[in-house]
Amino acid sequence: MPEKFVAPDLDALAALVRDARVGHFAFVEDGEPRVIPIAIVADGAHILLHGSTGSHWLRLLATGIPVALSVTAIDALVVARSAFESSMNYRSAVLFGSCAPVGDTLADTVAALDLVTEGLIPGRVAELRPPSAKELAATLVLRMTVGDWTLKVSEGWPEDAPADVAGPAWAGILPLRTGFERAIPAPDLTAGISQPESVRTMLGTA
Amino acid sequence: MPEKFVAPDLDALAALVRDARVGHFAFVEDGEPRVIPIAIVADGAHILLHGSTGSHWLRLLATGIPVALSVTAIDALVVARSAFESSMNYRSAVLFGSCAPVGDTLADTVAALDLVTEGLIPGRVAELRPPSAKELAATLVLRMTVGDWTLKVSEGWPEDAPADVAGPAWAGILPLRTGFERAIPAPDLTAGISQPESVRTMLGTA
Repeated sequence: MPEKFVAPDLDALAALVRDARVGHFAFVEDGEPRVIPIAIVADGAHILLHGSTGSHWLRLLATGIPVALSVTAIDALVVARSAFESSMNYRSAVLFGSCAPVGDTLADTVAALDLVTEGLIPGRVAELRPPSAKELAATLVLRMTVGDWTLKVSEGWPEDAPADVAGPAWAGILPLRTGFERAIPAPDLTAGISQPESVRTMLGTA
Repeated sequence: MPEKFVAPDLDALAALVRDARVGHFAFVEDGEPRVIPIAIVADGAHILLHGSTGSHWLRLLATGIPVALSVTAIDALVVARSAFESSMNYRSAVLFGSCAPVGDTLADTVAALDLVTEGLIPGRVAELRPPSAKELAATLVLRMTVGDWTLKVSEGWPEDAPADVAGPAWAGILPLRTGFERAIPAPDLTAGISQPESVRTMLGTA
């Protein structure tokens, strides 16, 4: 794939994390590679993740073992005049670091969980009751402290050789659209409760 | 996240690979975790991947070191009546195995590359010239032989507690739509070359 490394840019990383929603965490266990997808939210130069306190993997990550995190968004198919030049436009970040629980107090956990919720569904926290003590006790929230990281961006047109450009094949790009087009109410939704602003914002109808 | 493991089902795995287009390969180098996104295509119970012969990572994978491959598709946001129950509907496969070059002959390489092209853009091979010797020499095509693998599928509605169901918050799911809505011709496309059937198939206009 044609690609370029771009200067570390936290805004571009935050946009990629927002678009990808899920990152792939790689780590080593008993000398063997492991990889799991986890919902992520950017918090400045850090990454927040969470899950059940009962999760073997999350508890292993919480010990601070080295992790590599890949965050990827496919932006388009690049349809060239040859298979060789055909590729994808994408954004790909790889971050190295380690994870630790976000803090010592319930307030730390609540604040981090609010960031996670807001990162995934902006505006949702204000529409919900606060988490209960039982929920907080069942939730492990980790912050990944990032050391080295890279961001590669591939964008643009097919780069066909002149002989192919002069040939009969079509070339162009097919942008990959991702988004939310509709909200389906839960079957047990109480009649009369309308879509909240957070959902309308996700749908682009706010 | 609520989730369930489903019985190993190659059709479901193939559909996930098709939808995800990119998998995240984790491996160990010098004791440290690494993870890279690579375009993938399912070939029966195997996974095909390719790249430049100049790629350090691809050549390392070609040596047959243990790899863990994560393939993920987000299908919906699950907007519950609490942050705790909010989640995503998703499909997630993790496959363990190792990679090797697809074969000893140019014909093996061409056949595998055709599968890759057809997997990513169905119908495209018939529209293109065959790969050149120079292109084949610059391309490394690997087949991942898969041992253990799992497929987890999370689907369905928010599972709110009765007290929350009785409360004022909205709940439902927001399906995440991904697809190709338009094709943008390359700026140097020769006038008069119309969209090929492969592209129209991707757009749903064939």
